[in-house]
Amino acid sequence: MASTLTMHPDRLFSSNKIERDIARNLYQHVEKLPIVSPHGHTDPAWFAENKNFSNPTELLIHPDHYVFRMLYSQGVDLDQLGIPRKDGSHANADPEKAWQIFADHYHLFQGTPSRIWLDYVFVNTFNITEKLNSSTASHYYQVINDALQTEAFKPRSLFDRYNIEVIATTECATDNLKHHQKIKNSDWSGKVITAFRPDAVVDPEHEKFNAKLVQLSELTNLDCQEYSQYLDALRQRRLFFKEMGATSTDHGHPTAATANLSDEQASVLFQKVQDTPTASDAELFRAHMLVKMAEMSLDDGLVMQIHPGSHRNHNQQLFAHYGRDKGADIPANTEYVNALKPLLSKFGNNTDLSIILFTLDETVYSRELAPLAGHYPSLKLGPAWWFHDSPEGMMRFRRSVTETAGFYNTVGFNDDTRAFLSIPARHDVARRMDCTYLAELVARHMLDESEAVTLAKDLAYNLAKEAYKL
Amino acid sequence: MASTLTMHPDRLFSSNKIERDIARNLYQHVEKLPIVSPHGHTDPAWFAENKNFSNPTELLIHPDHYVFRMLYSQGVDLDQLGIPRKDGSHANADPEKAWQIFADHYHLFQGTPSRIWLDYVFVNTFNITEKLNSSTASHYYQVINDALQTEAFKPRSLFDRYNIEVIATTECATDNLKHHQKIKNSDWSGKVITAFRPDAVVDPEHEKFNAKLVQLSELTNLDCQEYSQYLDALRQRRLFFKEMGATSTDHGHPTAATANLSDEQASVLFQKVQDTPTASDAELFRAHMLVKMAEMSLDDGLVMQIHPGSHRNHNQQLFAHYGRDKGADIPANTEYVNALKPLLSKFGNNTDLSIILFTLDETVYSRELAPLAGHYPSLKLGPAWWFHDSPEGMMRFRRSVTETAGFYNTVGFNDDTRAFLSIPARHDVARRMDCTYLAELVARHMLDESEAVTLAKDLAYNLAKEAYKL
Amino acid sequence: MASTLTMHPDRLFSSNKIERDIARNLYQHVEKLPIVSPHGHTDPAWFAENKNFSNPTELLIHPDHYVFRMLYSQGVDLDQLGIPRKDGSHANADPEKAWQIFADHYHLFQGTPSRIWLDYVFVNTFNITEKLNSSTASHYYQVINDALQTEAFKPRSLFDRYNIEVIATTECATDNLKHHQKIKNSDWSGKVITAFRPDAVVDPEHEKFNAKLVQLSELTNLDCQEYSQYLDALRQRRLFFKEMGATSTDHGHPTAATANLSDEQASVLFQKVQDTPTASDAELFRAHMLVKMAEMSLDDGLVMQIHPGSHRNHNQQLFAHYGRDKGADIPANTEYVNALKPLLSKFGNNTDLSIILFTLDETVYSRELAPLAGHYPSLKLGPAWWFHDSPEGMMRFRRSVTETAGFYNTVGFNDDTRAFLSIPARHDVARRMDCTYLAELVARHMLDESEAVTLAKDLAYNLAKEAYKL
Repeated sequence: MASTLTMHPDRLFSSNKIERDIARNLYQHVEKLPIVSPHGHTDPAWFAENKNFSNPTELLIHPDHYVFRMLYSQGVDLDQLGIPRKDGSHANADPEKAWQIFADHYHLFQGTPSRIWLDYVFVNTFNITEKLNSSTASHYYQVINDALQTEAFKPRSLFDRYNIEVIATTECATDNLKHHQKIKNSDWSGKVITAFRPDAVVDPEHEKFNAKLVQLSELTNLDCQEYSQYLDALRQRRLFFKEMGATSTDHGHPTAATANLSDEQASVLFQKVQDTPTASDAELFRAHMLVKMAEMSLDDGLVMQIHPGSHRNHNQQLFAHYGRDKGADIPANTEYVNALKPLLSKFGNNTDLSIILFTLDETVYSRELAPLAGHYPSLKLGPAWWFHDSPEGMMRFRRSVTETAGFYNTVGFNDDTRAFLSIPARHDVARRMDCTYLAELVARHMLDESEAVTLAKDLAYNLAKEAYKL
Repeated sequence: MASTLTMHPDRLFSSNKIERDIARNLYQHVEKLPIVSPHGHTDPAWFAENKNFSNPTELLIHPDHYVFRMLYSQGVDLDQLGIPRKDGSHANADPEKAWQIFADHYHLFQGTPSRIWLDYVFVNTFNITEKLNSSTASHYYQVINDALQTEAFKPRSLFDRYNIEVIATTECATDNLKHHQKIKNSDWSGKVITAFRPDAVVDPEHEKFNAKLVQLSELTNLDCQEYSQYLDALRQRRLFFKEMGATSTDHGHPTAATANLSDEQASVLFQKVQDTPTASDAELFRAHMLVKMAEMSLDDGLVMQIHPGSHRNHNQQLFAHYGRDKGADIPANTEYVNALKPLLSKFGNNTDLSIILFTLDETVYSRELAPLAGHYPSLKLGPAWWFHDSPEGMMRFRRSVTETAGFYNTVGFNDDTRAFLSIPARHDVARRMDCTYLAELVARHMLDESEAVTLAKDLAYNLAKEAYKL
Repeated sequence: MASTLTMHPDRLFSSNKIERDIARNLYQHVEKLPIVSPHGHTDPAWFAENKNFSNPTELLIHPDHYVFRMLYSQGVDLDQLGIPRKDGSHANADPEKAWQIFADHYHLFQGTPSRIWLDYVFVNTFNITEKLNSSTASHYYQVINDALQTEAFKPRSLFDRYNIEVIATTECATDNLKHHQKIKNSDWSGKVITAFRPDAVVDPEHEKFNAKLVQLSELTNLDCQEYSQYLDALRQRRLFFKEMGATSTDHGHPTAATANLSDEQASVLFQKVQDTPTASDAELFRAHMLVKMAEMSLDDGLVMQIHPGSHRNHNQQLFAHYGRDKGADIPANTEYVNALKPLLSKFGNNTDLSIILFTLDETVYSRELAPLAGHYPSLKLGPAWWFHDSPEGMMRFRRSVTETAGFYNTVGFNDDTRAFLSIPARHDVARRMDCTYLAELVARHMLDESEAVTLAKDLAYNLAKEAYKL
C-alpha cells in the first residue's frame, strides 16, 4: 500500500500557532541562503572526477552508517546490504535486493533524523511522491537509478543545484590532495576545500602510525622519526593544506586531554611511542600534540577543531570483518575542564587562536563547555554533533548552551557527513530548529523579532563563515 | 475542606490544542488494550491464595516505598506509619492513625507520579469523589476498608477487572515457586508468571550468598560450592523457572560490569568469593556471571534484563532497623560502554540473544544506551525506570533515545511495582505519555497520524509481548 | 538606531494561551510579595554607610562577572573595562568608555539571563525606554549616572523600594561584622543579616589558611593551631554570627566529600595541613570539617548550605593579574551519593538538622539530589544555582527534581548575587518561571489551580523563610 509522501512546509516548527508563525517568518529569511559546509567527509574524488554515481544503494546506503547501523540493530545482515568486507568476500550482494531490504525496514527510522533527511532527498532531489515501503521499493530504485545516469545528477551538478557556497572535506596529513588540485585546475567554480586531519601521525595507537611517519618523511624529505623534524614536517604539511584551501585542522581524539611537555620530555616520549607505547604514553603524546597543534595554529592561522569522546570500533567482530566507520563508534563520558587546562593555561587567553570544541557527551554542554566558551576568548562551541545532529539534539544544545555562552560563542552548523545528498536536508533541519528556538524566545518576549531575524541569518550562514575564516 | 476529585480525560496530554486532539485520538486506540506487565514485584501469594487485602494502610502505604520515603523526608516517623521493624518492635501502629498521617501530608505528593497513581486508584478502583486531605482521611479509610472486605476486591477479581493479560513476578533462583504452581493448578485463568532473579546466588556481597549456595545445593542435588556443578545448578533452576512460565531473567547489579574469565579463572575466583571476597573479587565475579547468564540465555531462550546502578541501602541506620527496600536506594553514576564490552564482544552480534538494559542514570540515554541499542542486534532498551517512571522521566527517555535508537529498539512499558493497585494507573500514565510524545511528532509533521496509531499500539502492547516472548 | 525598550507583562510565560492565562493569574498572587534573599553576596558596607553609588560602570559592570566574562570571551580587554588589577596597574580606565564598550557588545547577551536582568533594571529602576546599543550608550550613562547622585538611588532607598524583607550577605568566619553592627545600631529598619562562611579557615588550600588561623586565634583568644581550641573558636564565631542575625552557614568546597575522623585522627591531620598538606590531606580535612560543621549546626541551629563543584580560578593568567571571582570559575562533575554518605550516616536522619544542597552539575538533579532529598529528613535542595540561575536552568531544575522530591523538599529562590540592582529582576524571573512550570501542571490537569496558587506563594516566599528560619 503506497501513500503520499510530502514535506510539510511547517515541518519541525512548534505546532503552537504563535511560535509557528514567527518561525515561518524567520525561516523565510534563511531558507535560501547558500550552504556553508565547513566540516564534513564527502569524497573529493566525486567533485574532481564528476562521474555519475553508480546506483541508489551505493549512494544512499553504503556511505551512511546512520542508516545501516539501525538495520543491523534489528537483525539485518550487513553482507546482504552489500557493505564491503575488508577481505573482499561476500561482495556480490545485489544492490536492488539490498534496497528492498532497506525499504522493508524503513519504519525503523520513524522518529529519527535519518527519516527526515531521506524523505527530503526523495522529495526534493528525486521528486518522488509516494512513501518508501516494501511495495514501493522497486519503483524507488528505478526512479533514483535512472536519475543517477543523467548529467543533472552528477556530483558537480548536484553541488551547484544545492547552492553550496563552500564545502570542506577532511584529509589525512599525508594525503597528496590530488583531487583538490584537480578541482582547482578545472573550469568548474565549485569551492571544495580540505581540512588538515593529523590523527594518524599524532596518535600512536592508530593502526598505521609508524607507517604514516615513514610516509610523512618521504613527503617532506625530513626524518620524521626525530621529534624536531617531525614537528617541522607537520608545519610543512599544514602550509600545503592551507595552500590548497584549508582553513582548519580537525582532531578526533579519544579524550580532550592536553599536556605541556618540555621539548626534551616530548622528544623522549616520541621515541617511546614509536616502539610499543603503553596506553598512557599514547594518551600523553596525543595530549601534548594537541598543544603543539594550537601553537602551530597561532603561526599559520588554521582554526582548530577538537572532536573528542568517541569510543571507536566498539564492536570488535564487526571491525575485524568490515573495518572502520560501520556504525559501531559509541560515545563515552568526556571531561573537558581539567583536560583542557594545560592547553588553556598556555594559549587560552590568546584572541588570535580559535578552537572549536565538539562533544558527544551532552552533559558537558551546560556544565563545562558553555562556561568555558563563555569565558575564554580562544574557545567556541561547535554544533550538536553526530548522534545529536537531530531536532531534539539541536534543541538540547541551544537550551543548554545559550544562557551561559550566548549565540556568538557558537559557530553555526556543520553537516559532518559522508552522505552527500543529505547535505541540503541536514542544513534545512538545522535552520528550522534554530528558527524554532528563536521563535520561542520571541514568543516569550525574550527577543524582538528583528533581533531574531539577524540571529537566524547569523546561525544559518554568517557564523560558520566567520568562525572558519571562509 | 473537601473538594472534588476527578480524573480529567485529557490529563497529561499537552495543553496545546493541536497536539491534544491528536493525543486524544491516539489514546482511544490504546486506552483499553489489555495490560501486559512483563516485569514487576507483586506477591504471587495474593493470586495463589486470593485472600482479601487487610486494610488501606497495609495495601497502599506499606508496600509502596515511593510513598513512605516522601513522608519520611519531611520528618514523618516510619514507626508511626507502621512500617515493620526487623526485630518486630514498634509493630503496634494503628493503621487508621497511619492513614491519617498520610492524608495530613498528601500535599507533599503534588507534582509527583505517586499523586497521579493514587488519585487514579481512589477514583477508578474505589469510586471516591473527594480529594484526600486531613478532613477526608477517615472517610477514605472507611470506604477503602469496606471495599477490601468484599469479593470484588480480592486479588483475582482486581486482576480480572484490571484486564491484565499477563503479569510477571520476580523470584529468587532458590524459590520453590509454590504460589505459581498453585495458580497453575487452580481453575482461575489469570496468567501469573515468574522471572528468574539469581542475584542472591551470584553476588558474593549479598548477605545470604553462602546460605543461598547451600540452599541451591539442596534443591538441585549438586555441590554448589564447586564451580561447574554450580553452573549446572543454575541451568537446572532456569529450566524449572521456564517450566513455571518464566520468559526472562533479571539481574540487579551495582554496576553494568561484565567479564570473560576462563573456566579455570572463574573456578578459582568462585572459591575465593565463598570465603571473604574483596570488593573487586565480588565485582569481578558478578561481571563474569553476567556473561555466563547470557550464555545460558542462548541455550534456554530466556530474555535477559540488566538493572544496574542502584546504591542499595544507602541509609545505614534505616537499614539496620527496617531492612531492605525502604526508599533508601539511591541511583549512582553508571557506565555501560566499557562495562558491557566483554559481554558484547562475546555475544553482542548474536540475533538469538535478547538483552534488555535499564538505567537510573539518565545521562546515558543519549550518550551510551541509544547508540549501543541502535547498533547491537542483541540489545534493547527497557523503559524509564523507578525514579524516572514518571511523566517527565518518560518524556526525557523518548526524547533522548528515539532519534538514535528509534522506537523498535525499545520494549514498551514495565510497571516494576509491588503496589498492585497502581498497575492500571501506571500503564495509563505510560500510554498517555507515549501518545503525548507521538502527538508532538505528528503535529510537527515528522510522523503521519496513521503511523502514530500503529506506534501507539506497539508501545502500549505489542513491543512488550514480543520483547519478552509473551 | 534606537528602538523601544519595554518589559512585556507576559515575558517568560509559555506562549500557549491556556498556560499563559494560568501563569498570569498565578503571577498576580506572587508579583508583589516581599523579597526574601537568604543567600547572596552584596556588600554590607553599602547598607551600613549608605553612600551614593559612584557610576554606572562601577555599579553594573565591575561587580558582575556574568557580564564581563561574556565580553572577555569575545575578545574585550578587562583593562579597558576598568576591572581592577591586583597590582593596581591599568586602573585608569575611563568608566564612560568602558560603558560604551559594554553597549557596543550588548547583543552578545541575547538569549542570556543577564540581558533579562539588565533590561529589567534599565526599565524598572532607571525608567529608560530605549534599547542599549552603541548609539544609546552615552544617553544611558548619563541617565544612570545622574540618578545615582540622588537620595532615591542610595542603597537603603533602593533596598526599601525593592521591598526587600530580609537580605543575607556572606562573611568570612573572621569578619568583625562591623557593617552589620552599624546597620543594627542605625535607625534604618532594613534587615541585613550575615551568613557564616568558614572556607578560609577550613580549607588548607585556601591561600590565606594559615594567616586566617592566626587571625582566628586573635579574635577568640584561643590557640587555633590546636585542634580542640580551633573547634571551640569556630563554635564561638558561629555564635557571634548568630547574634548578628545569621541563620545559616555556607560551605563552598571543591567537592561534596565528607568524612568522619576520630578526634585523634583529626588532630593529627590538622597539624599536617598547617604545614604543607597534600591535595588528599586537604580534601580529607575539608571533608571532616563538613561533618563537624553539621555537628555544630545541631547545637546552634544554623542551617547548613553546601555549594560544591566549582573549579575555582581555572584561568591561571587571569587569576595572577586580576584575582578571584573574575568569571573563570568553571563547574566540574560532582558526585554526592558516596561523598555525603559519611555525613548522612552520622546525622542524616536527624530532623533537627537542615542541610541545603546546591550543584553546578545538573546531571545529579534527577540521579542523586532528588532521590537523596526525597528520602533523608535532614536534606533539602537549593534552587538552580549560578550558571543555572536562568529560565531554562530553573525549568530543568523543576522538571528533574519535582517528580521525585516534590516541591516541599526545595527551599525557594536564592539570588546569590553581588549585583544589588539585579535582585528584583532575578526574583522576578524565578517567580515567573515557577508560575510557568505550575501553569503547565495545571493545564495538563496534574494540579488544581487553587493548589498552584498556594504553591506559587510558597515557592516565591514561604519556603525560603521556613528553610532559612527567617
